[in-house]
Amino acid sequence: MNRRMVLFMLGRIIMLEAFILMLPAACSLIYKEKSSFAFLITIVIAFAVAFVLSVLNKPRDKTIFAKEGFVIVSLAWICFSAVGALPFVISGEIPSFIDAFFETVSGFTTTGASILTDVESKSHGILFWRSFTHWVGGMGVLVLMMAIFPTDTGRTIHIMRAEMPGPIIGKLVPKIKSTAKILYLIYIVLTATEALFLLLGGMSPFESIVYSLGTAGTGGFGIKSDGLASYTPYQQWVITVFMVIFGINFNLYYLVLTKKVRSALKSEELWFYLTIVATATVLITVNIYDMYGNTSDALRNSAFQVASLISTTGYATADFNLWPTFSKGILFLLMFMGACAGSTAGGLKLSRVILLFKSVRSNLKHMLHTRSVESIRFEGKKVDNATITNVASYFALYMLCIAVILLLLCLEPFDLETNISAAVSCFNNIGPGFSSVGPMSSYAEYSAFAKLVLSCAMLLGRLEIYPMLLMFSPTVWRNRIVRS
Amino acid sequence: MNRRMVLFMLGRIIMLEAFILMLPAACSLIYKEKSSFAFLITIVIAFAVAFVLSVLNKPRDKTIFAKEGFVIVSLAWICFSAVGALPFVISGEIPSFIDAFFETVSGFTTTGASILTDVESKSHGILFWRSFTHWVGGMGVLVLMMAIFPTDTGRTIHIMRAEMPGPIIGKLVPKIKSTAKILYLIYIVLTATEALFLLLGGMSPFESIVYSLGTAGTGGFGIKSDGLASYTPYQQWVITVFMVIFGINFNLYYLVLTKKVRSALKSEELWFYLTIVATATVLITVNIYDMYGNTSDALRNSAFQVASLISTTGYATADFNLWPTFSKGILFLLMFMGACAGSTAGGLKLSRVILLFKSVRSNLKHMLHTRSVESIRFEGKKVDNATITNVASYFALYMLCIAVILLLLCLEPFDLETNISAAVSCFNNIGPGFSSVGPMSSYAEYSAFAKLVLSCAMLLGRLEIYPMLLMFSPTVWRNRIVRS
Repeated sequence: MNRRMVLFMLGRIIMLEAFILMLPAACSLIYKEKSSFAFLITIVIAFAVAFVLSVLNKPRDKTIFAKEGFVIVSLAWICFSAVGALPFVISGEIPSFIDAFFETVSGFTTTGASILTDVESKSHGILFWRSFTHWVGGMGVLVLMMAIFPTDTGRTIHIMRAEMPGPIIGKLVPKIKSTAKILYLIYIVLTATEALFLLLGGMSPFESIVYSLGTAGTGGFGIKSDGLASYTPYQQWVITVFMVIFGINFNLYYLVLTKKVRSALKSEELWFYLTIVATATVLITVNIYDMYGNTSDALRNSAFQVASLISTTGYATADFNLWPTFSKGILFLLMFMGACAGSTAGGLKLSRVILLFKSVRSNLKHMLHTRSVESIRFEGKKVDNATITNVASYFALYMLCIAVILLLLCLEPFDLETNISAAVSCFNNIGPGFSSVGPMSSYAEYSAFAKLVLSCAMLLGRLEIYPMLLMFSPTVWRNRIVRS
Repeated sequence: MNRRMVLFMLGRIIMLEAFILMLPAACSLIYKEKSSFAFLITIVIAFAVAFVLSVLNKPRDKTIFAKEGFVIVSLAWICFSAVGALPFVISGEIPSFIDAFFETVSGFTTTGASILTDVESKSHGILFWRSFTHWVGGMGVLVLMMAIFPTDTGRTIHIMRAEMPGPIIGKLVPKIKSTAKILYLIYIVLTATEALFLLLGGMSPFESIVYSLGTAGTGGFGIKSDGLASYTPYQQWVITVFMVIFGINFNLYYLVLTKKVRSALKSEELWFYLTIVATATVLITVNIYDMYGNTSDALRNSAFQVASLISTTGYATADFNLWPTFSKGILFLLMFMGACAGSTAGGLKLSRVILLFKSVRSNLKHMLHTRSVESIRFEGKKVDNATITNVASYFALYMLCIAVILLLLCLEPFDLETNISAAVSCFNNIGPGFSSVGPMSSYAEYSAFAKLVLSCAMLLGRLEIYPMLLMFSPTVWRNRIVRS
């Protein structure tokens, strides 16, 4: 373990956060709010820590391997969240550090689970910061760092691999730095487009920005206690469409940019995704028709909630907790899937779901014809057995994590439906669940212990388990054996 | 597909059932109950059908392959349940055929989910038949057939493989027929021992037999609406111990019989099983202590429910639906596991759980040291990659089945907790769930459609998915290409 290099990278990350914090600070200043001081103090603290870690500490050996990659990513996300929580605490808008940490982790992991019960009373700076954490966390804080800072270390692929979701990591272009830049460019353009559409629909500039940031990161923090119920149908449809858009693999947008539209449209995962969204929307529309009395309202609410849960955003226009069990059942299953790999969405990721389906099908075929060995193909390419085994064992680990989180949450005095949905929702980075943690409720009632468990769950889910888990392996922390 | 051979085997199975039905018929006659006529009529019908299928129809080609094995097992279980439901309907004690079919499937699959709300009002013959179905289904109806009838066909391993639970099928001795006989011998001796212990504890002979049959098959049908709450602590402890015993792999008992006690005690799965039982019992005892006020009651109730759910029996001495969420959470997770492979228990089976754990661990190691290739060992033997992939893809299929069953159940007007627990409980062949299908309630309120869905779920679970699923594959039904 190259500890000095790990600390150096953490310093870099915190320095990056100091810069990022200038945006909410500016927002506070524009609105002449007291919270601006909280941001300024945090920026000073962040720069001081960053100075100690990455200016006073200059590692001679800059090489990193897989294990350093995992440790850097895990610690970076924890430190990023701890520092990001400071403005909430210092401004006094979320006095408890545990609550603020939960809220910040929920922000960066693009979960959107909130402990706030009176979100309308918060200052603009704080509300902007909450939503901005979604945007930063969506694409990845280390990806952002690689896009901005000069990469004077090789093997950054280890970091990228540990932070990017999905079973197969594709570099768009040979250089990691350029890939990171391209991804962020697409991200910025799409976010700005959504904000423009919302502005045109009569939203205030502040609201347009907040909701665009929340949609882009597939986060889910809003600025009203009743979610998006009070917005116009046009605004709700715009957000629905963009939730779907941000659930699509960003590689496809790159293909479109490079005029390879046809190969983008060939993506199996894309069609699987759109089919599920369409099917679920139709089924729920039929099921909730009686509650709304007309197709247009039923369809809009159904499509919104489906897009919100499969993209793991977590916005709501309706209290789906009150919907019939069939609709709730569909939404519950969507919570597990997540959208496409390579998007900002959380969850299992559809490419994994597809590979699991294919592995099951190939297994069934094999049972009938013991001698047949048929290889599995995905996105036009042959998938090797190791990948299938990895995906299948990831799925087992994924369910195991949910089981452990659920067990720890069950120490709380809530019913099983609340705890199951809270575990599934936080682990998959969605936000709302059912019963006491439904879309119109909050996580405020959970104890400090449960909030820490759920914070871990959100980080585990966002980083796809391995980096966080490997932190607990003693071999990771052993000093490196010097190989000449 | 060798259709004539399939029909021939089905005839055999139904003939076997006609013989089996003589036992409850005798029981009815002893108690001079009207239901004896129902049994006699069913026996006549069964013999008639069996005569047509296996005496009038003599297949020349008696070879069967894997696909015939799957089809025979699936159809055999469906026919067995349909014929077994007749006494309930004819006697008028369960007038609806759907209800009777549900009850019989629940019996043979050793689930123990019941639609009866007034079990005390049923005749002895009918109650004996319900419990006897557990016993027959526990070890397997085709295994029983192979133990009794002369096996004039080769390749019966295909049938055994399709019916026996667990990821790895072990023949105790080279000949299938002898293996089947040894298994049934162990089964009979253990069941008789339990009945003796219960008799000594002051239970009536009828009750001792009924509960022993229910425990042995890890079924769960009882003869009282409040489960086993009204029995003495001694009787409850005897059943607890035997539920644990019937959850152990029967191969280990064979090892003990052949004086290989040491290698039986080396079983990883056994220790994993006992550790889980002990841990869960202690955690729940502490959690429910306040409800009972003394250690002895808390421990007894905790141990009973833990043994009942992990062995997928489903008996209850307490309404665990009213227990704190932490205890319910533990019980919920136990529902998935099931006990050891090669036992009469349902569920995922612990050997699969262990292999999944090991596969996850090996994957984590591999992430750190890309070049390390460490093979997975289980029960002292190296496990090949194909087995790991099979287990992992079985797990994915298992979760997929639960998802589909849940979705179909959600069409019913019950809450999500009821539906989730009903799906998990029936699919894992346990019986009771939570909320409206708790241990002191029944499945009577579900619609006919839901009862059919749950019947399928129970069969899918008992036969470990593949045989039932392959029935829907067109290739299975295609006529055989004659190979010289």
